Amino acid sequence: MDFAHAPSVSLRPPVRKEYLRLRPPELRDQRGDIERIIGALRRRGYAGEIIAPHAAARSAGLVARAAYKLTVTVVGDHGAWHIIRLEEGDTTGCLYGAAVDVGTTTVVVTLVDLNTGKAVDAASSYNQQIIRCDDVASRISYASDPQRAQELRELVVDGTVNRLLRLLTHRHGLAGDDVAHMTVAGNTVMTHLFCGLSPTGLGAVPFAPISNFPGPYRAGLLNVAINAQAFVDIFPSAAAYVGGDATADMYVCGLARRDELNVLIDIGTNAEIVVGNRDRLIACAAPAGPAFEGHGLSCGMRAAAGAIESFRLGGLSDPPRYTVIGGDKPAGVCGSGLIDFVAQAFAVGVISSAGRFTDRARARCPRIRKLRRNEAEIPAYEIAPAEQTDDGLAPILITERDIATLLQAKGVIYAALQMAMKHFGKGFADIHRFYLAGGFAKHIDPDNAVTMGLLPDIDRGKFTFLGNGSLGGAFLALIDEDVRRELPHLAAAPAVIELNLDPEFMDAYTLAMFLPNGDPSLFPTVKPAK
Amino acid sequence: MDFAHAPSVSLRPPVRKEYLRLRPPELRDQRGDIERIIGALRRRGYAGEIIAPHAAARSAGLVARAAYKLTVTVVGDHGAWHIIRLEEGDTTGCLYGAAVDVGTTTVVVTLVDLNTGKAVDAASSYNQQIIRCDDVASRISYASDPQRAQELRELVVDGTVNRLLRLLTHRHGLAGDDVAHMTVAGNTVMTHLFCGLSPTGLGAVPFAPISNFPGPYRAGLLNVAINAQAFVDIFPSAAAYVGGDATADMYVCGLARRDELNVLIDIGTNAEIVVGNRDRLIACAAPAGPAFEGHGLSCGMRAAAGAIESFRLGGLSDPPRYTVIGGDKPAGVCGSGLIDFVAQAFAVGVISSAGRFTDRARARCPRIRKLRRNEAEIPAYEIAPAEQTDDGLAPILITERDIATLLQAKGVIYAALQMAMKHFGKGFADIHRFYLAGGFAKHIDPDNAVTMGLLPDIDRGKFTFLGNGSLGGAFLALIDEDVRRELPHLAAAPAVIELNLDPEFMDAYTLAMFLPNGDPSLFPTVKPAK
Repeated sequence: MDFAHAPSVSLRPPVRKEYLRLRPPELRDQRGDIERIIGALRRRGYAGEIIAPHAAARSAGLVARAAYKLTVTVVGDHGAWHIIRLEEGDTTGCLYGAAVDVGTTTVVVTLVDLNTGKAVDAASSYNQQIIRCDDVASRISYASDPQRAQELRELVVDGTVNRLLRLLTHRHGLAGDDVAHMTVAGNTVMTHLFCGLSPTGLGAVPFAPISNFPGPYRAGLLNVAINAQAFVDIFPSAAAYVGGDATADMYVCGLARRDELNVLIDIGTNAEIVVGNRDRLIACAAPAGPAFEGHGLSCGMRAAAGAIESFRLGGLSDPPRYTVIGGDKPAGVCGSGLIDFVAQAFAVGVISSAGRFTDRARARCPRIRKLRRNEAEIPAYEIAPAEQTDDGLAPILITERDIATLLQAKGVIYAALQMAMKHFGKGFADIHRFYLAGGFAKHIDPDNAVTMGLLPDIDRGKFTFLGNGSLGGAFLALIDEDVRRELPHLAAAPAVIELNLDPEFMDAYTLAMFLPNGDPSLFPTVKPAK
Repeated sequence: MDFAHAPSVSLRPPVRKEYLRLRPPELRDQRGDIERIIGALRRRGYAGEIIAPHAAARSAGLVARAAYKLTVTVVGDHGAWHIIRLEEGDTTGCLYGAAVDVGTTTVVVTLVDLNTGKAVDAASSYNQQIIRCDDVASRISYASDPQRAQELRELVVDGTVNRLLRLLTHRHGLAGDDVAHMTVAGNTVMTHLFCGLSPTGLGAVPFAPISNFPGPYRAGLLNVAINAQAFVDIFPSAAAYVGGDATADMYVCGLARRDELNVLIDIGTNAEIVVGNRDRLIACAAPAGPAFEGHGLSCGMRAAAGAIESFRLGGLSDPPRYTVIGGDKPAGVCGSGLIDFVAQAFAVGVISSAGRFTDRARARCPRIRKLRRNEAEIPAYEIAPAEQTDDGLAPILITERDIATLLQAKGVIYAALQMAMKHFGKGFADIHRFYLAGGFAKHIDPDNAVTMGLLPDIDRGKFTFLGNGSLGGAFLALIDEDVRRELPHLAAAPAVIELNLDPEFMDAYTLAMFLPNGDPSLFPTVKPAK
């Protein structure tokens, strides 16, 4: 998580612990246990409503057992203080939170020590919903049946987030109850499924969510394996396809606080784009599909151990050079490797502007092979022969169909960027900084991304890598209550444009499916292979 | 319910319904269903936080099914508005609440139409906890085992209140969900058991409650058979034995708003006493026991059909005259009849100042009979011979032990009144009004209650009957949110004195067990029989 561009935050978590030594009751002082606790919190400066939920009231019996020395966990929410836990003795040293990025494909949980504000550990895995369907569109369709919606909810909450939470708490000798707050950033569909809200309205025009600002929620209601009384803050969305992950990114790059025109793009299964400055923000969503996350391709995989993350070709007939995450034999190619491949293959003339293997390559490049599939022969580029791969059985190949899928994905994103800039009334040259967020963004080689026509042809120094801004935003909201309070305003700030309503979008998209673009004047620094 | 002395209230229930016709979503307007509803409420003038709980968000799918015409039920609580129900179409005409008096012995539920502010119907029954134990002390002891505490909770919530609620809603063709708010007044022990809070601390010095201000609660959490999202407001208590019922009484008689010195007494199993004016309030509890509610006596019963409610003796040897609730043959004697009996029997010389049958009565009163019990003969007064009673088998008798129990009960109450007045620094002569509350108070003959030494010897015109102030307060809090808001302040207002700490109490109590009192100068208008 990189917070170089984030507004400065303080260690001021919405959840706190207070060790209280209460005056025991006597005949002249028949206040209730709860009133004693509230009185002690008042003396510590807690103003406004102080609410003891049922669970705290029920466990108030321990106040006497604890000889009136106890630790109270308190969460501030909307001007009120909620008592969420009572513990015997002084446990103030043990206070944790969990920041969660719920991606369509990948879920990451960070365990945060709220006494120090430091991320103690993190764990990630595929979003287990993926065993049912890959992309958000198919999940919306799957969830049109309420029982299946419930199944998806259980897959992400219990099957993914709770497993990661248990792994982390177990690893650090903590109980689930020791995790006293949670923040969750994800796109609008993920948020709906996570909270048990029907995503059906998100599946078709006019893309109507149940809520862009869901909550407030308690962990028990959502079945999240932390303290049942703890608050779970769901990051608010700007629209159906500009979700809570984009809100988190916006916070982390400070987009809405700067005078200069900046651009933010979160490349997930749907790319979310926000363009603007402190005065005005334009947002849109580009349905790129999961290609850059490694899904739907012959050789794609997520950016994990075994993934080819960078790729280089010296010339048409040279053997490729690549690096593998973890350094072992490759098992597949992740997003950044795919971008590198397309850009390098185009630059040396292996593939044409239309994404086809060139005649020259078919004749002279030893890595172009013919695969026999369904009685037809299809050409493919062999990135690694079988004997060099992780399983030693199958080669890592990229077919023309894979390339076409990647060109579609990058075409949607580039055309969407063009539309957002047009609506803002500025050109790419006016961009001060171009923020790249998303799990795999940090692996991208900007030169190759420009060569491929995914990113605009601007000064490469303007590209700034945010890392996982969604997770970063969730982390910041966990440690600073001011961040948490700002989020609804931030989510409401962008004017969201709908690409389907813009007749120029389809033209721009059609051109953007070429390498680097059907309008080469947009990419003056990119020269096709001679 | 008598509100002649209550502050004027308005029809301004904390729960409301709004029929909304929303703008359907379109591509240019991707707000969520919930945000559409919140926006429409804002335009109706709902300021402050508007919170849609999970259930509302989950049912937001009906917004589309309802073609964006729906009725929203909204509750105001602590400055925020909570959406608790969404219904298709216009259902604003159907909005109900339930006011509940949870007595140790008797539970009453009033169904209130919140569109008119009128009580539509009421139903009452014994508090089913009584099948396990009679008085609060034995219930506290029973509930020291958590499973048994849970059993008592189920007996009062599901076994009593929910049965009465279902009876009322069924009788008026309503669903449980149509009841959108509930107010509950009861003593501190009843409140603890109702909410599932351990009453153990209330059972012994220093009488420590879990909470005197329990909640806020939702019906679903308490398992109350109304709309699960509805708020259930528990009347706050001043202390362990000055409960929410006393808070309700205080509101209904306007005690804390008047310049004059007034006295309030709620005669239940524990008598709650509040003395004071707008400047200062003194409260205490007198553990009278259940005698005046007809428990623990040979012939006692609650003020229900078949109970002798008034009783008159012309002379020592005259036959008694009595009236029976419902007009049929008597089955027993309720509190007011017992007071009448003791007072009249004392006035004509049947019993002595010490509560014993006089020699004269033993010789000349034909109603004094000798019962043979365990080889001993004990004298008893026959109120009705067997052939005149409801079952035709057993006579209705009052023994000397019964009389002693009644004298203990009245002695505790009178001595407690004396202590409260002493702490306030005034005498009985300074009292402007003396409010009598509690289920059976309205049946009391003040002359007899003074003759018995239960109530002080003041101008009889000052005695004012509140009726069931606990139920009345619950009703007012249901229809006027200002009442609801005032209750915590009212409960916190009295200085609670503990009789056990006052060395004069035991002396006063000892004297007060005589008829009318061991210090006859306190009762100048009461003349013993010659």
